[in-house]
Amino acid sequence: MRTHFYAVIPAGGSGTRLWPVSRRSRPKFLHDLLGSGRTLLQATWDRLEPLTDPERIFVVTGAAHVDEVRAQLPGLRDANIIIEPSPKDSAAAIGLAAELIRRRDPEAVIGSFSADHSITNRQGFAEVVVEAVAAAATGDIVTVGITPTYPATAYGYIRTGEALAIDGAPSARRAERFVEKPEAAEARRYMFSGSYRWNAGMFIARADALLGQIAQESPELAHSLEQIADCLDDGGATADPIELWDSLPSRAIDYVVAEPAAEAGRVIVIPGDFGWDDVGDFASVASLRQPVWGEGSGVYSTNEDAPVVAVESSGVLISETGRLVALVGVQDLVVVDTADALLVTTRQRAQQVKQAVAEVKRVGRDDLL
Amino acid sequence: MRTHFYAVIPAGGSGTRLWPVSRRSRPKFLHDLLGSGRTLLQATWDRLEPLTDPERIFVVTGAAHVDEVRAQLPGLRDANIIIEPSPKDSAAAIGLAAELIRRRDPEAVIGSFSADHSITNRQGFAEVVVEAVAAAATGDIVTVGITPTYPATAYGYIRTGEALAIDGAPSARRAERFVEKPEAAEARRYMFSGSYRWNAGMFIARADALLGQIAQESPELAHSLEQIADCLDDGGATADPIELWDSLPSRAIDYVVAEPAAEAGRVIVIPGDFGWDDVGDFASVASLRQPVWGEGSGVYSTNEDAPVVAVESSGVLISETGRLVALVGVQDLVVVDTADALLVTTRQRAQQVKQAVAEVKRVGRDDLL
Repeated sequence: MRTHFYAVIPAGGSGTRLWPVSRRSRPKFLHDLLGSGRTLLQATWDRLEPLTDPERIFVVTGAAHVDEVRAQLPGLRDANIIIEPSPKDSAAAIGLAAELIRRRDPEAVIGSFSADHSITNRQGFAEVVVEAVAAAATGDIVTVGITPTYPATAYGYIRTGEALAIDGAPSARRAERFVEKPEAAEARRYMFSGSYRWNAGMFIARADALLGQIAQESPELAHSLEQIADCLDDGGATADPIELWDSLPSRAIDYVVAEPAAEAGRVIVIPGDFGWDDVGDFASVASLRQPVWGEGSGVYSTNEDAPVVAVESSGVLISETGRLVALVGVQDLVVVDTADALLVTTRQRAQQVKQAVAEVKRVGRDDLL
Repeated sequence: MRTHFYAVIPAGGSGTRLWPVSRRSRPKFLHDLLGSGRTLLQATWDRLEPLTDPERIFVVTGAAHVDEVRAQLPGLRDANIIIEPSPKDSAAAIGLAAELIRRRDPEAVIGSFSADHSITNRQGFAEVVVEAVAAAATGDIVTVGITPTYPATAYGYIRTGEALAIDGAPSARRAERFVEKPEAAEARRYMFSGSYRWNAGMFIARADALLGQIAQESPELAHSLEQIADCLDDGGATADPIELWDSLPSRAIDYVVAEPAAEAGRVIVIPGDFGWDDVGDFASVASLRQPVWGEGSGVYSTNEDAPVVAVESSGVLISETGRLVALVGVQDLVVVDTADALLVTTRQRAQQVKQAVAEVKRVGRDDLL
């Protein structure tokens, strides 16, 4: 089975909540946001490489990022870079990868893993993927449900149902339904109920099952993906693949595949406890950098060359410039220091950074986005 | 009398509370901190020029700043620049100026006015100086007492006594004593008592009276100043003026002249209400830039080329770099953005910036001071 496992890394998204580090020209996944010495994309590669052959790892990314992706992942095969002419969300990106892989290997099981998430326990992740691949042999869509460690309101949840008896996937359960990001009170209830898990956006399925689900929910999308794959497989096709792509609907794989499949009772959850975080905002970054953090605990810089001086202050500095930063009498700040833009916020307000990005756009400074 | 009036501008001090704008190499008085289009030094010159001839305006400054002072004040006579080989506080600086001026004009009345304060009502200031010069004819030391507009704890106070009947100085009063910076409760009491005024550090006196006071309090200092003046007046002197200067005690004019004279009943106060501020910290700067300032009132940049984007934030940006600054969910911040150092504090904590400067020194980054 493992020899039929293909990893797909959708490397897209703008990461506006991580502006001004994350930019259109250099989005989140291309940055070493956690100070590990590897970018989020490279860390994703590092997690997947032990699970399959580089021949079977694909990256789907925008034309603007191909060079940088190639530079960051020397092990990535050129033929395994799928270029999106324009951003069309995850259903199109993963769907096209599935279509191309299915043509190569009708038995293929694909697993899709975001390029910009963080996982601290790589071994735990690997074990879960092995179970997920085994569970995918059923023809169902398999997802990973992360055990909540706090009542997150920034994540969607999966309500899990009965335990399933699947060979090689002892912890598999039925997914009853997917739940949107909850309010705080509901998030607390979910956390303590034991039947809700975070939706980490990981999908593992037979390529043909995934494409079947797409065809059922959106026959047009499925048809276009086939046409595009025809063009790419055989230069002699008459249609223009870029034109076809640009006409695709922008839809998330969650709505096209995961939710309808869950309604039909065709989604399996493998529980995961491997220190997952979506690195969704600077609060995430700050926590992953410095989890214990209270008043008087000081200030932490993500850049050793950027010294921080703190007087009765606490905070975290994310520095691209290396300038010295002094904080005096301020608490819990997040300071993001880049060459042409500076952001000051707090962990609590980190989600609102996207509003600042909207403002930057409004005042006509698109050059900074 | 006016033709015997000499203005002395001590242009020294490091302004550490205004770091990182104010640096050793470019201290506070050389900056246009208030966005008026003129540096604090130039604004001081602009206030004094209508009061006397440029022939009679002197600047005392450190060797490192002479070129910049000359560049900023094209009207300043080269012969009127008194260079301090090392910083020796105000008694030495003003004392040497008094000694040199007295030799030129035994009738001289000198007025000493800091190079780095702010005055909004220039005409009101001029009227007070005219009264002060008239009062100085008595041979007493004359100072200016600013009517408190809030219970300042960052200023020293002068307790005023009986009204005096002096020709040309109708508002003159006896100064009973000088009072150190008070605690908040005492500052409130002072403010409402009507008999306390802020000590703005302005001293107006006959040069011979001032030097007599120095001689009485510190005969050694007086003697050394005479020797230095001998050297400067006549290159043939045998002593080394720099060596003499370096051996001087570092003492403030307040302790050597003002306080002993007040104890002896020889200080006159002219009340002043001309919008004085010592621009002592970024809270001062913020208030002078944007006096009405509450939550939700937005963010103000001191640099038109440095756009600010604010989401549920208020604050003031002092920018030397012109970078865009975005604030998200933070209140009352002061952000000071310079090429190699960034400071984030609040108006309330602005006095503590000097602690940050001490820290910067401690971590070995003297290059940033």
